[in-house]
Amino acid sequence: MIDLYTWATPNGRKVSIALEELELPYRVLPVNIAADEQFDPGFLSFSPNNKIPAIRDQDTQRTLFESGAILLYLVDKTGKLDGGDRWQMLEWLMLQMASVGPVFGQTHHFHRFNPGKAPYAEQRFVSETHRLYGVLNARLGETEYLAGAYSVADIAIFPWVARWPWHSINWEDYPHLARWFELLAGREAVQRGYNVPASEQRILLPGQDVDS
Amino acid sequence: MIDLYTWATPNGRKVSIALEELELPYRVLPVNIAADEQFDPGFLSFSPNNKIPAIRDQDTQRTLFESGAILLYLVDKTGKLDGGDRWQMLEWLMLQMASVGPVFGQTHHFHRFNPGKAPYAEQRFVSETHRLYGVLNARLGETEYLAGAYSVADIAIFPWVARWPWHSINWEDYPHLARWFELLAGREAVQRGYNVPASEQRILLPGQDVDS
Repeated sequence: MIDLYTWATPNGRKVSIALEELELPYRVLPVNIAADEQFDPGFLSFSPNNKIPAIRDQDTQRTLFESGAILLYLVDKTGKLDGGDRWQMLEWLMLQMASVGPVFGQTHHFHRFNPGKAPYAEQRFVSETHRLYGVLNARLGETEYLAGAYSVADIAIFPWVARWPWHSINWEDYPHLARWFELLAGREAVQRGYNVPASEQRILLPGQDVDS
Repeated sequence: MIDLYTWATPNGRKVSIALEELELPYRVLPVNIAADEQFDPGFLSFSPNNKIPAIRDQDTQRTLFESGAILLYLVDKTGKLDGGDRWQMLEWLMLQMASVGPVFGQTHHFHRFNPGKAPYAEQRFVSETHRLYGVLNARLGETEYLAGAYSVADIAIFPWVARWPWHSINWEDYPHLARWFELLAGREAVQRGYNVPASEQRILLPGQDVDS
């Protein structure tokens, strides 16, 4: 049994999707970041950067913070979702951790939630987001999944791309990424994991009306 | 023999410091990012996000991009620098990849190189940089190195903290981080790796005059 400390954010969803794909038993312990629950001393004792997600593996009492470390732990625990080539999986997982997450996250802050507050920064992050869409699209024109076979690298990137309605993108520019996105969005485990903790957000597919 | 494609940046220095610590034979292939050499098609064929560092292991012909993936590859190849607890090492390595690098990097862009251009963004990243200094300082008040024993997590964070003259910090607020920084700065392998490709930048210690 794994205790999952999480909230309905892209980083949280990475881990719940992986747990669903791996069919590992887990229980959800919501950490309401809107209510600052990530600053609770008990939580900080094993997640010192005050971020979700974090886990405690009740089988071993191991705790872990940082979604990338948790995904690698789950791969190691099960021997699954490593993409067939562990180093290619790590390349794309690290690209998610170092670029896709940090850049898309700033696009959400500046472009979605604070438009006009810092136009230079807003343009910088939207532009870099589009460049990263291009990098992912080029890769997925060559391979079915990012690391070859389906892996935690795909799972790490999916919930960030699922926020595409906030990215001012034109899906026609990224046909290979759209193909991959629809492939993952069609997986039942992805749909279940995306909805943890239970939320009303649904996965919009390319071309679906944002306001429908 | 490992071919190291790099430039004198914090991400490049992570790998040259690790190679020096591990005493692995390598040759330096400079990629001058000031001259856009990272967009060369030959380089992009194995570093599709047009970033340094990247490596080619001549023993296996394996290529790798993303500094975090490269560091883990070197740990795996040698069985060294894993900190004694691989999962704690991964937690702090991932924190470097996802937070320290992306946040300090934006502080460099907005605060050091474009001051006043986007005051809201500049304040946001400087403030988050200081918060991360606090997280690292708290950890290093409990353990000698980030993961317990010396590891690639320390090596990944060191070159970013070495840019402290650009961070408007007060070292008196971070005594444990200062202790750790001086410890690493005193290592000959760190000094050699920091100077790859050969540059005129030197490692300033806490309290040393930036302009001296």
